Amino acid sequence: VTVKKYLFAPGPTPVPPQVLAAMAEPIVHHRGADFRVVYKRCLERLQEVFRTEQDVLLFAASGTGAMESAVANLLGPGVPVLVISAGSFGERWHALAQAYGCDVDLLGYDWGETPSPEDVAARLSARPAKAVLMTQSETSTGVVSDVRALAAAAREGGALSVVDAISSLGAVPLETDAWGVDVVVSGSQKALMTPPGLAMVSVSERAWAALGTAPRFYYDWETTRVAQGKHDAAFTPAVSLIAGLDVALGMLLETGLEAAFAHHARLGAAAREGAKAMGLELFSPDEERSAVVTAIRSPDGVDSDDLLRLLSSEWGVTLAPGQARLKGRIFRIGHIGWYDVFDITTALAAVELGLDALGADVERGVAVTRALEAYSQSLRV
Amino acid sequence: VTVKKYLFAPGPTPVPPQVLAAMAEPIVHHRGADFRVVYKRCLERLQEVFRTEQDVLLFAASGTGAMESAVANLLGPGVPVLVISAGSFGERWHALAQAYGCDVDLLGYDWGETPSPEDVAARLSARPAKAVLMTQSETSTGVVSDVRALAAAAREGGALSVVDAISSLGAVPLETDAWGVDVVVSGSQKALMTPPGLAMVSVSERAWAALGTAPRFYYDWETTRVAQGKHDAAFTPAVSLIAGLDVALGMLLETGLEAAFAHHARLGAAAREGAKAMGLELFSPDEERSAVVTAIRSPDGVDSDDLLRLLSSEWGVTLAPGQARLKGRIFRIGHIGWYDVFDITTALAAVELGLDALGADVERGVAVTRALEAYSQSLRV
Repeated sequence: VTVKKYLFAPGPTPVPPQVLAAMAEPIVHHRGADFRVVYKRCLERLQEVFRTEQDVLLFAASGTGAMESAVANLLGPGVPVLVISAGSFGERWHALAQAYGCDVDLLGYDWGETPSPEDVAARLSARPAKAVLMTQSETSTGVVSDVRALAAAAREGGALSVVDAISSLGAVPLETDAWGVDVVVSGSQKALMTPPGLAMVSVSERAWAALGTAPRFYYDWETTRVAQGKHDAAFTPAVSLIAGLDVALGMLLETGLEAAFAHHARLGAAAREGAKAMGLELFSPDEERSAVVTAIRSPDGVDSDDLLRLLSSEWGVTLAPGQARLKGRIFRIGHIGWYDVFDITTALAAVELGLDALGADVERGVAVTRALEAYSQSLRV
Repeated sequence: VTVKKYLFAPGPTPVPPQVLAAMAEPIVHHRGADFRVVYKRCLERLQEVFRTEQDVLLFAASGTGAMESAVANLLGPGVPVLVISAGSFGERWHALAQAYGCDVDLLGYDWGETPSPEDVAARLSARPAKAVLMTQSETSTGVVSDVRALAAAAREGGALSVVDAISSLGAVPLETDAWGVDVVVSGSQKALMTPPGLAMVSVSERAWAALGTAPRFYYDWETTRVAQGKHDAAFTPAVSLIAGLDVALGMLLETGLEAAFAHHARLGAAAREGAKAMGLELFSPDEERSAVVTAIRSPDGVDSDDLLRLLSSEWGVTLAPGQARLKGRIFRIGHIGWYDVFDITTALAAVELGLDALGADVERGVAVTRALEAYSQSLRV
């Protein structure tokens, strides 16, 4: 039997058929007129999505590559940096800063906690840092930070703000210029509805004026800025992924960013209400900002990895597991990008079927109804 | 009028429809069972193409990213290195070694010259180096080096051999293990018939034993080796490009590497004979190893950039220009990957039409015939 497949993970996320079709078109040369039109438009659309007047630098890389670019271009051995970590992706910032020999002050939280701007202010007043590395959406826990307040605390403390917005850009508000965020890093494979392989970064005037001396080449910001200024790429660009991203960004901007943010907030509300109606306990905060991924505790006696294996093998449904210390204890429903309310109800229905099959004590027959109600209510607001 | 398009550049190269179709399939999760099968098979196929028993490390990046990985993992500030440069991509090795603060000895040749193993031996005996950075196919000039001899000279001189095989792997012989080449770097968008965005590197036991201390994270070899050992990727892999690469490698291996090498040699011979029959002068060497790209001098009084613009606008044909000091003086016909003899005759026919339209003194009506003859002759050998 060929099972119909459903991808409800927070990245890579499902890609719209229009985007896949654009990627399947014949390859064009990256220095030809055909591609330059796409490339220029794609870079301009990225500026709109980042909400910045600055250039958005585009790399053929996973999101981590663009994170590394921030560390390599701004920091280096002995440079003081404050790292905020409350999950797997905060730990990635920490590992990156350590790999570059930075003088790291770690503001660590338990996985699932929400970082506090007051803590950032206190740390920076005790020990100045060149930059604060932070995560907007901690995909491992479902927590979305208050980046506006965290970035303000960084600025007031005399530090640059560097934000991992890989899973959040296009899903929740991020006003790069208006909030004065210095560096925003993102990736193609989340709310930007494109396969993985493209990473991007915006850089403020303040950050351009603060470049460091660590060795770098492929991720050197200035090299890429100069090339992009000529509507060229420093190194052979991933032309087919860029053709796809251009289409996806066009779709996102046609929807409108505010409408996209409201849509994600509604999906998050529907997922949370449905899960609670089933009798499940949320791990991610039960608040509007939790619009990227809903993390749910596995019921007593059920290893969430067993649930995910069953959903995948029996019903073709892919959810995301708990990582590291949360392995087996939570599962995560991603709802960033090319998702609508019927994806939420399908994910909830699958969880209901799976948990019931595993003998868990869940309330049957209410989750989907409640999710739809929450969705309708939020439409009326 | 919509012009039919022909891509005869040496990268990105045309991608077979089967590969494009694989990339247009619905996205799968990179940690799901469906993708692991593809990923494992793709990595094994890469070993076959690299002709190595070592792991081939796969990155979401342009080829330059994998070049940087060699510098970042093996070299660093003050580390002595010998760089061979005879064109644009040799200069890239040089720029990379300089960006990392290496103690660089530059063995520089005029663009279009073929590097000599004796020169490498002489340089290393005068000044030992940890590694020799070299280019198998210098795409900017069409010269294919004798990597077997250059790598042997490096080894005998006590240095690691690091080969940029981005445009050559799968087109001309490269016996990584049998020739004792320590590091081979390649990319998806040349003879591997996949869009740009994937880069790969093989690492010998000797090179694994000689890792350096320069800062690195995304391109850290050990991180990727450990992840790939678990059929996982260190960072979100470019799943759609990998699905395409897997199909492309399957096609290449079904053809057989020896057959692919012979095919490319035949295409090179056909291109050279056709160009000469037209009365044009070759820039790349007129020898069997010139099987990747044929570089041709523009006739007196014709700026090759004008020729390329005309071919593109009038007939939809993309060739590659001369770069840097060769700008306007040469043009290049790429024939790596998804090309056959009719692509060569089409490229030659377009050049004939274009040069004639620009008033150049070319022999009409013979190039295609001579190219087909040369192709048939080489089939009989």
